[in-house]
Amino acid sequence: LPTEPASKCIGVFDSGLGGLTVVRRLMREMPAEDIVYLGDSARVPYGTKSPETVRRFAHEDAAFLMRQDPKAVVIACNSASAVATESLRAELGVPVIDVVTPGARWAVEAAGGRPIGVMATEGAIASGAYQRAVALAAPQYADRVLTAACPLLAPIVEEGRSEDDPIVLSVVHDYLHRMQRDRPGALILGCTHYPLLQGAIAKLMGPATALIDSGQATAVAIAEFFRREGLANPRSGGGQLRCWSTDNPERFERLAGRFLGRAPQSVQWVGADELTAAESPVGGTP
Amino acid sequence: LPTEPASKCIGVFDSGLGGLTVVRRLMREMPAEDIVYLGDSARVPYGTKSPETVRRFAHEDAAFLMRQDPKAVVIACNSASAVATESLRAELGVPVIDVVTPGARWAVEAAGGRPIGVMATEGAIASGAYQRAVALAAPQYADRVLTAACPLLAPIVEEGRSEDDPIVLSVVHDYLHRMQRDRPGALILGCTHYPLLQGAIAKLMGPATALIDSGQATAVAIAEFFRREGLANPRSGGGQLRCWSTDNPERFERLAGRFLGRAPQSVQWVGADELTAAESPVGGTP
Repeated sequence: LPTEPASKCIGVFDSGLGGLTVVRRLMREMPAEDIVYLGDSARVPYGTKSPETVRRFAHEDAAFLMRQDPKAVVIACNSASAVATESLRAELGVPVIDVVTPGARWAVEAAGGRPIGVMATEGAIASGAYQRAVALAAPQYADRVLTAACPLLAPIVEEGRSEDDPIVLSVVHDYLHRMQRDRPGALILGCTHYPLLQGAIAKLMGPATALIDSGQATAVAIAEFFRREGLANPRSGGGQLRCWSTDNPERFERLAGRFLGRAPQSVQWVGADELTAAESPVGGTP
Repeated sequence: LPTEPASKCIGVFDSGLGGLTVVRRLMREMPAEDIVYLGDSARVPYGTKSPETVRRFAHEDAAFLMRQDPKAVVIACNSASAVATESLRAELGVPVIDVVTPGARWAVEAAGGRPIGVMATEGAIASGAYQRAVALAAPQYADRVLTAACPLLAPIVEEGRSEDDPIVLSVVHDYLHRMQRDRPGALILGCTHYPLLQGAIAKLMGPATALIDSGQATAVAIAEFFRREGLANPRSGGGQLRCWSTDNPERFERLAGRFLGRAPQSVQWVGADELTAAESPVGGTP
C-alpha cells in the first residue's frame, strides 16, 4: 500500500552543518514531522563556488533525498536556494521550498518603510536572488536592498568562536558598518550560520534594525503550506530526525549540536560520488 | 614511440588555488618543465575535512593527472600530503612528491637547536604528519614541535585581504602569540596559502624565527631529485603551464594571479565527478 503523503518525511539538504539551524526551527514548528537531512560536508562550502557547480551539487543532493520518498524537499542553504530553486522545481516531482523567499517576505513586513539589508555568502549576493525575492514581495523595495557579502562569517562559526570574541566583533563590524549607517529597518541573516552570531550582529546594528532569521521564516512558511495542502503529519509529536553526511559522520556528530541545539541521534555516511547512484531521477544539469 | 621520461610533464594537484604558490616556485627553479595543474576548487577546502574524504579526493585528483602521462606527481596541498602520500605512492606508478617532508627538513636545518613551529590547517595538524616528518629528519626534535591550527587563514587569503589589514593581523596574533613566546628557531608555513601572509607572520614572530616556505623547499627538493634521476627536462626553458579546475574556470583565472604571480594562460574545466572517468576527456602532453 502506498504511504499517505502526510505521513511521509521532509527531505532537507545543505552544504554542511548550517542547515541544521533550519531543521531546529522546523522541529519546533512541526514536532510531528519526520525529517531526513543531508549535509554535503565533503564539498562544503557552496557560498564561494560558481552557480553551475552549486546547481550541480544541489541536484545531486536532492536526488539522494528523493530516494527517501519525501513529501517535500527543503533547500536549507541560502547559496543553493539562490541558484538552484527553479531548476529543482522543474525537475523534482514534489514541492521544493527555498530559504530565500520566506526571509525576503518577513523582511518587507518588518522594515517599516526603511531599507532592507541582506548579509550572505559571495555566491548568494552575486546571484541577485535576494534582490529579486524582495522586489517580488514588494516592488517598492526593488532599489532599496543593501547587500553585504560576508565570506569569513561561516568559517568563523564553524571554528566555534563565541559571539563576544574580539575577532568576531571586528569582522562583523568590517562587513556591516557601512550598511549600519543607512539604518535598515530589517536585516536578513542570509546564511544558515548567521543565527549563531545574532548577538554580535544585533550589537552592531542596534535595536532599530529587525534581524530576520531565514530558517525561522522558512519553518513558519512550510507549516502554513502543509496545513493548507493537507500535508501536515496528523500525529501530535514523535517526529524523527535522520542525518546523512558526505564527510566523516563523527565530525558531523561532534559539531552538529551547536547548530541543532542538541546532539543528533545518528548520522550515517554517504559518499558524494554515490549521491546519484542507481535509479536516481537526477538529470544532467550543466 | 614512447615519450622520453625527461620530456614528460609534472602533474601537480591541490584542493584549489593555493598550490599555485608551489607551481610558481617550481617554474622559477625549473623553467624548462611542462606542468599540468589540477585545482579541485569545486570541493575546496581539504583542511577541514576528514582524512578518509581527503584521501578519496586526492586519489581522484591523481587519477586525472595520471591520464596526462606525467613523470612525477606533486601533492601541492599540505592537508592532502599529510594523509594521502603513502597511499598515493603505493598506487601510482610514478614518483610522488609531498610538500610536508621538504619543509620539515628545511626547518630542522634552520632551527639552530631551538623548537620548530608548524602552522597549518586543522586536518594537517591533527594528522601528526609534520611531527612525524620532523622526527624522521632529526629524532632530537621529536618532542620539540609546536603546532598551531589556523582554520581562518586560508579563507582570509582567498578573500584577498592585504597583510596590513587589522583583521589579518589580529587573527595571526590570535593563532600564533602563544607559540611566539616559545621563540621557535623556525616556523613552517604549512599551508600553500600562508606565503601570501608572510609579512604579517614575520611581524609577529620577529627576526629570530626563520619562516619556512613549504613550496620553496619542495621545488628545490624536486629539482635535486630530477637531476639525480636524469628526469630534468634538458631544454633551457620554454616550459608550459596548463591548468584545470573542477569549479568554474573564470573564477580560477580571476583569482589565480595572486598565487601564481601572473595570470595563467588558459584554464579548463573538468567535473569533479569526471576526474576518475575511464576515458580521458583530454589528450596527453603536447
